[in-house]
Amino acid sequence: MTEQKAANVTWHQHNVTAQERSQLNGHQGAVLWFTGLSGCGKSTIANAVDRLLHDRGFHTYVLDGDNIRLGLNKNLDFSPDDRTENIRRVGEVAKLFADSATIVLTAFVSPYKNDRDQVREIIGAGLFHEVLVDASLETCEARDPKGLYKKARAGEIKGFTGIDAPYKVPENAKLTLDSDSKGIEELANEVIAHLETNGLLSA
Amino acid sequence: MTEQKAANVTWHQHNVTAQERSQLNGHQGAVLWFTGLSGCGKSTIANAVDRLLHDRGFHTYVLDGDNIRLGLNKNLDFSPDDRTENIRRVGEVAKLFADSATIVLTAFVSPYKNDRDQVREIIGAGLFHEVLVDASLETCEARDPKGLYKKARAGEIKGFTGIDAPYKVPENAKLTLDSDSKGIEELANEVIAHLETNGLLSA
Repeated sequence: MTEQKAANVTWHQHNVTAQERSQLNGHQGAVLWFTGLSGCGKSTIANAVDRLLHDRGFHTYVLDGDNIRLGLNKNLDFSPDDRTENIRRVGEVAKLFADSATIVLTAFVSPYKNDRDQVREIIGAGLFHEVLVDASLETCEARDPKGLYKKARAGEIKGFTGIDAPYKVPENAKLTLDSDSKGIEELANEVIAHLETNGLLSA
Repeated sequence: MTEQKAANVTWHQHNVTAQERSQLNGHQGAVLWFTGLSGCGKSTIANAVDRLLHDRGFHTYVLDGDNIRLGLNKNLDFSPDDRTENIRRVGEVAKLFADSATIVLTAFVSPYKNDRDQVREIIGAGLFHEVLVDASLETCEARDPKGLYKKARAGEIKGFTGIDAPYKVPENAKLTLDSDSKGIEELANEVIAHLETNGLLSA
């Protein structure tokens, strides 16, 4: 776990509680953590779920790997240490959004089990829903929406997950989506069904 | 400015737009950036404004210096470089919250002009409202709510703003609150009036 560096800091309880924010929004916060290989469909599915939830009046937000790397985490690269710090920071930000009674959808490769476990610890297992977007390397490489597999195979990108960097498959995913054989709409509806089954779409 | 480290990252437009999130919430996002010496009342005023806005149905969230240093920024200390990175990260997170149509209230000493200017650039001058919570060092040291000035005077804390580290007074604050002579309730209402005057409390 990351060491606490600053001394003389004290937790301040907010005046408005998470429960009050949930009452205003009509639902609690939660974190749907989509994990999987590049090209497996994480961002597309997260955005599709976001659309479905938004249109039903839920307060949602998407945290997307590339966008965060162009902003909050622009000072991190793809080395193992920086990947870990990337995911840690996103976990902390997702926790803040969930505390604000937002349903957060995160789309990060997040290839290391330890990193995802740290996020679960940061957010709390109750609010944290690990969603494996399961597609074979063959499928992802055939899609190659950003041309990154091609670059990785050509040696132009080093440390690319699935090629020359590992992906550790989740053992504790609350939901697994079969992105090899099912389309975006079907998978997005599976996520909605998961949320309903778990009582996350009621106040 | 912080250098972009990761290559091969592409901005993804969210399916649900900031405008749609504003329509759902009934108001746009904004960032109220409270700055001032330790003990000037930043957190207390931010939380009082948060309460007033929440009770009127606005979607709000407080980002507080100490709390963030116990979470997202736990790996930063109070060195000049780490202070800069502390404020940069908070600026990026505040931007995300504002993009989700949340009125964000941040309470950070944020003593360096360059750091606050960087945040203005990250968030955009239109959404960014710098609020100086103006209290003299004498007032803050007399209050000393956490006993930190006492420790700093005794040399137990090094680099404490106002004692042995500088505070650069904002030149471009959109609002200045006189925390030497006015109470919390009056100042919170001044912030509300500022928001109303600037059209931030309408859709």
